Amino acid sequence: MESSSARRALYFPSGPILRVVLFWNVLSLFVVSSNALLSPTFSFATGSPNRHRCEDQSLTTTQLRGTSASYDTTNNNNGRNERATPEGHQDVMDDRKIAETFLENFERSWNTLSGNQVVQQFFVQDTTPFWRDMVAFTWNIATQEGTVEISQALDGQGVLNHRSNCHFELSDKPLPIRQFTQDGDEILEFWTDLHVDSVGTGKGHFRLVKEVEGEEKQELTKGFKIHTLLTTLLQLSERPFQVGSNRIRGHEAGAIRNRKYWPERRQEKNINEPHVVIVGGGQAGLALGARLHLLSIPYVILESGSKPGTAWRKRYPSLHLHDPVWYNHMPYLPFPETWPVLCPGMKIAEFLEFYSKALDLNVQINSRVLKIRKSEGSGDVWEVLVQERLDPAEEKMTTAKTRTISAKHVVFASGNSSKPKLPKNIPGKFLGLQLHSSQYRGGRPHAGKRVIVVGSNNSGCDIVQDLWEQGADHVTMIQRSPSMVVSTNSVLTHGLGALYREDAPIPHEDADLVATSVPFKLLIPRWKAVNQKMKETDQDLLKNLAEAGYQLDDGPDGAGIFAKSATEGGGFYIDMGCADLIIRKEVHVRYATLARLEPDGVVIQDKATDEEEYLPADVIIYATGFETLDQWMATLCGEEISKKVGRTWGLGLGKRPRDPGPWEGELRNMWKPTAVDGLWFHGGNLAQSRHYSRFLALQLAARYMDIPTPVYGVPKPT
Amino acid sequence: MESSSARRALYFPSGPILRVVLFWNVLSLFVVSSNALLSPTFSFATGSPNRHRCEDQSLTTTQLRGTSASYDTTNNNNGRNERATPEGHQDVMDDRKIAETFLENFERSWNTLSGNQVVQQFFVQDTTPFWRDMVAFTWNIATQEGTVEISQALDGQGVLNHRSNCHFELSDKPLPIRQFTQDGDEILEFWTDLHVDSVGTGKGHFRLVKEVEGEEKQELTKGFKIHTLLTTLLQLSERPFQVGSNRIRGHEAGAIRNRKYWPERRQEKNINEPHVVIVGGGQAGLALGARLHLLSIPYVILESGSKPGTAWRKRYPSLHLHDPVWYNHMPYLPFPETWPVLCPGMKIAEFLEFYSKALDLNVQINSRVLKIRKSEGSGDVWEVLVQERLDPAEEKMTTAKTRTISAKHVVFASGNSSKPKLPKNIPGKFLGLQLHSSQYRGGRPHAGKRVIVVGSNNSGCDIVQDLWEQGADHVTMIQRSPSMVVSTNSVLTHGLGALYREDAPIPHEDADLVATSVPFKLLIPRWKAVNQKMKETDQDLLKNLAEAGYQLDDGPDGAGIFAKSATEGGGFYIDMGCADLIIRKEVHVRYATLARLEPDGVVIQDKATDEEEYLPADVIIYATGFETLDQWMATLCGEEISKKVGRTWGLGLGKRPRDPGPWEGELRNMWKPTAVDGLWFHGGNLAQSRHYSRFLALQLAARYMDIPTPVYGVPKPT
Repeated sequence: MESSSARRALYFPSGPILRVVLFWNVLSLFVVSSNALLSPTFSFATGSPNRHRCEDQSLTTTQLRGTSASYDTTNNNNGRNERATPEGHQDVMDDRKIAETFLENFERSWNTLSGNQVVQQFFVQDTTPFWRDMVAFTWNIATQEGTVEISQALDGQGVLNHRSNCHFELSDKPLPIRQFTQDGDEILEFWTDLHVDSVGTGKGHFRLVKEVEGEEKQELTKGFKIHTLLTTLLQLSERPFQVGSNRIRGHEAGAIRNRKYWPERRQEKNINEPHVVIVGGGQAGLALGARLHLLSIPYVILESGSKPGTAWRKRYPSLHLHDPVWYNHMPYLPFPETWPVLCPGMKIAEFLEFYSKALDLNVQINSRVLKIRKSEGSGDVWEVLVQERLDPAEEKMTTAKTRTISAKHVVFASGNSSKPKLPKNIPGKFLGLQLHSSQYRGGRPHAGKRVIVVGSNNSGCDIVQDLWEQGADHVTMIQRSPSMVVSTNSVLTHGLGALYREDAPIPHEDADLVATSVPFKLLIPRWKAVNQKMKETDQDLLKNLAEAGYQLDDGPDGAGIFAKSATEGGGFYIDMGCADLIIRKEVHVRYATLARLEPDGVVIQDKATDEEEYLPADVIIYATGFETLDQWMATLCGEEISKKVGRTWGLGLGKRPRDPGPWEGELRNMWKPTAVDGLWFHGGNLAQSRHYSRFLALQLAARYMDIPTPVYGVPKPT
Repeated sequence: MESSSARRALYFPSGPILRVVLFWNVLSLFVVSSNALLSPTFSFATGSPNRHRCEDQSLTTTQLRGTSASYDTTNNNNGRNERATPEGHQDVMDDRKIAETFLENFERSWNTLSGNQVVQQFFVQDTTPFWRDMVAFTWNIATQEGTVEISQALDGQGVLNHRSNCHFELSDKPLPIRQFTQDGDEILEFWTDLHVDSVGTGKGHFRLVKEVEGEEKQELTKGFKIHTLLTTLLQLSERPFQVGSNRIRGHEAGAIRNRKYWPERRQEKNINEPHVVIVGGGQAGLALGARLHLLSIPYVILESGSKPGTAWRKRYPSLHLHDPVWYNHMPYLPFPETWPVLCPGMKIAEFLEFYSKALDLNVQINSRVLKIRKSEGSGDVWEVLVQERLDPAEEKMTTAKTRTISAKHVVFASGNSSKPKLPKNIPGKFLGLQLHSSQYRGGRPHAGKRVIVVGSNNSGCDIVQDLWEQGADHVTMIQRSPSMVVSTNSVLTHGLGALYREDAPIPHEDADLVATSVPFKLLIPRWKAVNQKMKETDQDLLKNLAEAGYQLDDGPDGAGIFAKSATEGGGFYIDMGCADLIIRKEVHVRYATLARLEPDGVVIQDKATDEEEYLPADVIIYATGFETLDQWMATLCGEEISKKVGRTWGLGLGKRPRDPGPWEGELRNMWKPTAVDGLWFHGGNLAQSRHYSRFLALQLAARYMDIPTPVYGVPKPT
């Protein structure tokens, strides 16, 4: 378990960082994309049971091949293939007509009828329907599963208000309408523009399936019913993001007495009473800051380092992103098309520093948050106690002053606590050098040394490789629990290639939306299939690793890397070269526990034989991750608040200690209201920070603008 | 005249800068775009004479409405309008067939026949045809005008080699094929992909016109002949730019002993024997550096300031771009879509600094070039004597060391000399503060003061406005020669809107290509028409300015702002608010010469009355520009070399002292071989630096790769 958090350190380096999960959108990718965009001949879960012969999970395997563009449907090996060919043009027109008629009826009911009536008329009855809402109707990020849940939610007070005056209009973006047959089910998938009352606009996504029983009765809509519905709010009517055609002019026309120069106008934003305090100036904090800035919502980003993105700057020098650069763009300022596919961490650090300037963000550097507490005077204002480093060269802030910032909303965008998590209660004393991975500055100082690395996930493996590459004499990895290894190739193709690739058919922010269109419940069987595909691709690698003694697992329910990411936030290694070293026995891996320390080595207990063994060592490096956010939150806000909020991240799959049930249907407490009013959580990798910052910013903006935001389904205090 | 160079200072701030011309592609925009992209109902030069009834210049007015997308042809008010409508689909197919047949025949002849034969068969005979080549066949940027010139060029030795194995293939990019009728002429315009022998690939553009006489004979190609042909080289086959699908991986797969970390790999590029020395780290130098970097050609950029883009950083604080941000993107890393339409100069400075990091450019800061001379040992190597500032805080480089860098190629990308050009031989002595515009740091120190600003173009007007805005007591502008004023609105719409705008129909780099497709000779009548259009839009503004005493002119031949830009590199003001101050008499303008200085004021001589008048003043600011590149080149390279190269910039229109004849057909000595081997000139505004850096980089790369580069039409020493 510890080793899974060690991996996190890779992506949310040593600074204060929230959850560190490499793949976010990936969670949904496979499902969503059907991989058809990647390879027209790719087809998975063939022969999966027909929807009408199974329930729930098996359903998902039958339903989710869709969502790719209509030009890419050659993987449907049934009679309707020709719909996507030129001769099928008329069929596409029919599909549009069906969709438009469906939307017309649906909109009328949605605006006027009870939840029960809407569900009865428009949602599938013979299997579980889903409605995922991203802030549009529930002021929450929530998935309703089943007719009863959906019906109740639709009648929720706030929801009812918002859905009285909506408009759904068929749209070709992010993807055009697509009709196809899958395992005997006829499926019609399309996107809509969505007007949510007077509040704002967004996108809707409908995945319809034809119900056999209803077909005769509904000639116009051919008996199609909703299997999954996505509703998203993307823009507030009163205050659109100042981007593109809404951007500012920059130089106001005409002559203006005492005109402020640009640097001064930027400085003006440095207000002391922001609406939102963002804790952490990494990708998450900066992305949210950018969104709020472009909504003209007063905010401040508090960064403990001397530059935005300091966490990236402090990582080991060999660090490269393990996933491709085209997946990791920040909002509004994508990485240059010249950047390496697997980008050096230092370039990310430089980029984030510039990003804060380019977007004119209000970042207060050298500012460490000490305490967050409710103001005694006014119950709904937070007081954030900040320690400001006066001497930037001084890491420990011994010369510092403190001050208090008040705000209605505080967002944790700080990754993990930055407090290294070290193995506890290991007896004995080691006289050599011991480092946590966050203190590791590259392998050169350890050339010629015997090094033990505790941890077998991303950062553990990266460090082992770097040590070998820079000439360490003897490197041994202590693996304390099974992990997963996936090739970079598997990540680039099976993992991300469907929606995010060099020549991707749609822009990455559209891809984010597409990836959002599938409820988590329906993702899990997809994850299994993808895991299977990856294992096929990587079979030689995995076989050889196992033979070399590296212990492999399959993730919860066999759902692989994505399930690990969503539930534990880690527990895998995307191979950048270490696997080959392990296989060639250039470095050594021991599946063992750390029994005790000796002055010049460690004693391990082999997990297979239970036998103890002494390993001599000059250096021990703990790639064992960081303490969790719960503890960090408790430190800053106190135990009471931390307990009230409960866990963050995880789906409630109930398969691993880190992700206890009940099933949540969304990532716990992330980017949405928590049980503690005004306390929010934002995080994840670059892609997640990009996508979810938008929804979080809209929620914060609505509150600033005094738009009523009744939340449906806010979690109860634990 | 001096005031025109003063304006330059605005865009190529005080650092060492080449020619400073706000509009570059604008030169061609109007012509090219036909404005149809901007406004379907816009039609200019209506009633211009038929091609068959006129020669040369009038020809141009009849021919150049084209080049917009086929969906946007509603400005053609003749019988063929319906070709662009859905019913006209069959016609488009016919057009494609005509174009393909034409290309098939053309390619065969191009590859095998003599120049004379090619011209006779494929170029118009009843009027002047044009062939513009951008490095593809001539290894030069050159326009051939007329059948004789084209025929001779086609038989030029290098050209002949390159055109023996070429392929032209109809393409829909940058714009799809378009057929239309204009003033009785049938025109067919299309783009092609172009394979130039084994050298590389690019784009071709054909503007065909139907010759009445030939119609009967050529049934397949309907008698169409080439009126203008553009050939461009955009990529070298052996060494494509490392962008997009050619980008590097970043982290080499597998384990590699002694792997270099990223900062070290970047550092490796800091070689001492580059192939190219680029003098100047502003937009021009950095854009060229980026191109060379992505071709893996060793180069070094020498920047005298302490940061890349220092010239922008040192400008007055009120500076904003006078043209829109979407026109000014640097290569590979466009400005964020959040940036203000009229961007603050300081943001450009910050961007250029980051640009050099983001693109991993080899910039040596604090490095001032003192001398450039041919190596005594080897005749074809330049020795560049560089002074390095040791104390970055020290502006004057009194603590400095010198060193010599050798390279086969030296590129001036330094804008003007940064040597202020001041009015000469003004008698008398002024006891107050005198500043050149490059020393002006904003109006606040001058609040309450009486200020005289000499110069009436962009920087003069900006400074006058800033002084008033920041509270100067009394501001008088001395206008020494007539100038032009254009509203920002005119620039955004008539000036750039056709190809460059918020919702532009094609990417800006495609727009650059489109703008390149029209020879300069054919642009001039367009410029006149556009100037007329701008004057209509701005008629109230201009009338009121004239009434307030501001002297207006029309540019050479009445061709307005674009002709001024191409010939003089300045001489206009794009109104950012100063015009209103002049009109309201909040500030004062005097059309006068500076007769002499007095201790506490100046004496001017009114140009209308010849009468002298005393103006009291506390401060005099000279917005009078910089010395020209000729002088800067002479300082660095010596008089002999400077004379051999001759003038840079200008078309040879022969209408103004700065732009003597003969007609050149291209901008003199810019981005192409000069009379001095290995000495090159690069410059212009951000858009020009973006576009032309590509062609210059390809020429330098070919020489590095020892690809034979026989130049056709290299200028003879003057």
